Amino acid sequence: MLKNNLLLRTLAGEKTERAPVWMMRQAGRYLPDYRKLRDKYSFFDRVQTPALATEITLQPVDQIGVDAAILFSDILVVLQAMGLEVQLIENTGPVLPAPVRTEADARRVFVPNVEASLGYVFEAIRLVKQELNGRVPLIGFAGAPWTLLCYMVDGKGSKTFDLTKSFCYTQPVLAHQLLQMLTDTTIAYLRQQVKAGADVVQLFDSWGGLLGPDDFEIFSLQYMRQIILALKQEVPTILFAKGAWHSLAEMAATGTAGIGVDWCIRPDTARAFAGHQVTLQGNFDPARLLTPIPELKKQVTRMLNDFGPRRHIANLGHGILPNVPVDHAKAFVDAVKSHSYQNDFEKSSL
Amino acid sequence: MLKNNLLLRTLAGEKTERAPVWMMRQAGRYLPDYRKLRDKYSFFDRVQTPALATEITLQPVDQIGVDAAILFSDILVVLQAMGLEVQLIENTGPVLPAPVRTEADARRVFVPNVEASLGYVFEAIRLVKQELNGRVPLIGFAGAPWTLLCYMVDGKGSKTFDLTKSFCYTQPVLAHQLLQMLTDTTIAYLRQQVKAGADVVQLFDSWGGLLGPDDFEIFSLQYMRQIILALKQEVPTILFAKGAWHSLAEMAATGTAGIGVDWCIRPDTARAFAGHQVTLQGNFDPARLLTPIPELKKQVTRMLNDFGPRRHIANLGHGILPNVPVDHAKAFVDAVKSHSYQNDFEKSSL
Repeated sequence: MLKNNLLLRTLAGEKTERAPVWMMRQAGRYLPDYRKLRDKYSFFDRVQTPALATEITLQPVDQIGVDAAILFSDILVVLQAMGLEVQLIENTGPVLPAPVRTEADARRVFVPNVEASLGYVFEAIRLVKQELNGRVPLIGFAGAPWTLLCYMVDGKGSKTFDLTKSFCYTQPVLAHQLLQMLTDTTIAYLRQQVKAGADVVQLFDSWGGLLGPDDFEIFSLQYMRQIILALKQEVPTILFAKGAWHSLAEMAATGTAGIGVDWCIRPDTARAFAGHQVTLQGNFDPARLLTPIPELKKQVTRMLNDFGPRRHIANLGHGILPNVPVDHAKAFVDAVKSHSYQNDFEKSSL
Repeated sequence: MLKNNLLLRTLAGEKTERAPVWMMRQAGRYLPDYRKLRDKYSFFDRVQTPALATEITLQPVDQIGVDAAILFSDILVVLQAMGLEVQLIENTGPVLPAPVRTEADARRVFVPNVEASLGYVFEAIRLVKQELNGRVPLIGFAGAPWTLLCYMVDGKGSKTFDLTKSFCYTQPVLAHQLLQMLTDTTIAYLRQQVKAGADVVQLFDSWGGLLGPDDFEIFSLQYMRQIILALKQEVPTILFAKGAWHSLAEMAATGTAGIGVDWCIRPDTARAFAGHQVTLQGNFDPARLLTPIPELKKQVTRMLNDFGPRRHIANLGHGILPNVPVDHAKAFVDAVKSHSYQNDFEKSSL
């Protein structure tokens, strides 16, 4: 039994005493205790050693007081399990020395037995659940097929992922085969995360916003929809496609319990597009956490009032930046916890 | 007198026989003749030598058949004129060895006499106008103050320009002083471009979309508004703030003749947000130019029908990519030129 189940009640659409709060990348570089582990262990050592992943996952729960833990891991472990080499170069980002750009390249890719190849993830989830002992729920996650394809084809980070887009536009059959393999793998992967104890799962489409509305449906949303449909009976799901504001209605129609929104959309616009049957998560500008604390608190107050007291999970609009002072992160979380809604009567009539 | 004044008539809201077409970065690396000059001269040699800038500006007019020329130049020449060193490293992007991050740094920045320090730009405009001899209009341009501040503070390209955002949030007085200096310089710069012969001017806010709606007003739009107000009686203006779909109505309210839109918004949504008193420019996905030509043509047809025959300038949603084959660029332009509108009656009743 969970002692703090605010997140689950909010995702279920219940009226709660306040909005739950967590931060994307909350287990990360802005925390001094994380940086100590980073100096001792390589990135994939931290990800693939369940005891280390557990320790990192718990840091923001213990130190910042968030209402949910999210497993410390990386979306690219799925590509490793599918047969690709992924290197993580500190402060530079991921590199795939042999990206997939031809049919011959694609022959190296397979749908893995996730239990065998990603066992360390499920082991970490079991350990985290034990350590949490019901304090807060645990969020599992995976990258969306489109975002994983971006890394698979471009082979590294990019502003525009033009290689991947060009790949999709010139070799659509192959692109769709790979997207389906990514989808099948992700469904099996998230199911095992739930079996191991994840209370909620979030799908991260970090690069969905690079596609126009039609291409977003063709190369991203149709695959995310399959994943949500496969999971939503088992667990509440959150869909976060950064920048894809144009498809909020279509994302809500998948039946996902929650949708993440970035900071480039007003809360009332997001609600108007997404409708009233879904919980919205977001959308504080991560760079705004660098603002002096009094102004930061004012802006949190405004965000909370704009979303209203129902069906809102307070979060950032993207991952927390490494240079955010810990007391600013804590001020964000505390401001949510101590907030009293204006217009409570009006907004709660949603 | 212009022989082809389609662009000007479309910006004035007149019904025209077809949409005018040009491409952002049309004078650039996808053209073999441009690459020959790039191999012989440095970037700033090409920009600062009027004969070279003229030759490059004319290449897409002669070779691709666009309906407008846009001066070959760079938004960062304004920062050079304001006292900052800017290096352009081929295939990497701009670098400012001494970025502006403190009050002491800011003391190096001044509002220049643009006639003296940017004379080569106006000389290039006069030369281009002579060479064009009225074939098509010439577009002048400048970077928006916010986008220039991004380079001034971050000192190089960035996905998120967090340093600049943090600078604005922690030193707002200094940030606004610099933004006002950039605005004053830009107004003088564009006025001189018009005096030298530019028929239209476009303001590029490449990084406006990194700001949330409130911050976009505070740190970007209020300054662009000053520029549009100062120029719009003299020349038709086009405002392009990539990603800032949330403020299309506010941008239209500046009185600009045109607004550029990127490919991540449907034409009818852009029209609904911007209203009917402004010309929209865009919004083909630059990566979609890599699509095989038959599919490319279909997509152009769709875009044109979606925008309708009035108040639309066909263009890309961002700059053309260096790896686009010349025949694909030409197919894009030709598809616009040979298009017949569906629903002509319905749409033209706008």
